[in-house]
Amino acid sequence: MASIFTKIVNGEIPSAKVYEDDLTLAFLDINPASRGHTLVICKPELPSLLDLPPDLLAATTRTTQLVARALMAALEPDGFNILQNNGSAAGQVVFHYHVHIIPRWHSDRVLTPWRPGSASPSDLRDTAALIAAQVSKE
Amino acid sequence: MASIFTKIVNGEIPSAKVYEDDLTLAFLDINPASRGHTLVICKPELPSLLDLPPDLLAATTRTTQLVARALMAALEPDGFNILQNNGSAAGQVVFHYHVHIIPRWHSDRVLTPWRPGSASPSDLRDTAALIAAQVSKE
Repeated sequence: MASIFTKIVNGEIPSAKVYEDDLTLAFLDINPASRGHTLVICKPELPSLLDLPPDLLAATTRTTQLVARALMAALEPDGFNILQNNGSAAGQVVFHYHVHIIPRWHSDRVLTPWRPGSASPSDLRDTAALIAAQVSKE
Repeated sequence: MASIFTKIVNGEIPSAKVYEDDLTLAFLDINPASRGHTLVICKPELPSLLDLPPDLLAATTRTTQLVARALMAALEPDGFNILQNNGSAAGQVVFHYHVHIIPRWHSDRVLTPWRPGSASPSDLRDTAALIAAQVSKE
């Protein structure tokens, strides 16, 4: 079954569009965390960042920067977050790749920072080595 | 004064490196939100997403995908978040562009979701029109 975002791409569900090109679409979140909360999607229905081929990755990133720039000029927030969730454990609800652009105003408390953890230098070194070993296999 | 990340790039401050190329560097956050929490930076000291020229934007995005893929293979979390803060109002602390890759495990409560807001269709349409008008000026 097509995702809700594919239905938006196909015009079966209306959306408040901000930008569109051949590969990407940007529209407002209907349950905004803040005014101007925008979603940037790639049109093909791919679930995660890991699934995007280079052309779609580059295109969604370009659109994200373009829309963030326009959003800052249009609404003049004090800053913005880019948030992109992969997997239900990470809070992903729609399994069609999308990037949240969330405008922020001072003291708005829209997103809560994480609790900074601690790790020993040797823990960090060991964990980095595990990841680096996989990078070299990619 | 050079940012703490520039000092890491220059080897003046040690880091647990995961990946490096000419334009980007990935290393572990020393106060991890979760095990394997990685930062991806562009080497030039630019503060925000809006400041990155196309080559650096493409390079940091490629590195982010590469490292996320390796991290998933190495540590096998249930998912991951990509988070990137722009401006102190958005929680940015180091004003040198960086992307957080935060591995997530089910029920870890590492990041709290925002409270979904509401907006009328006409509010959404009006806000989208303001942003779209700026997009066309970019």
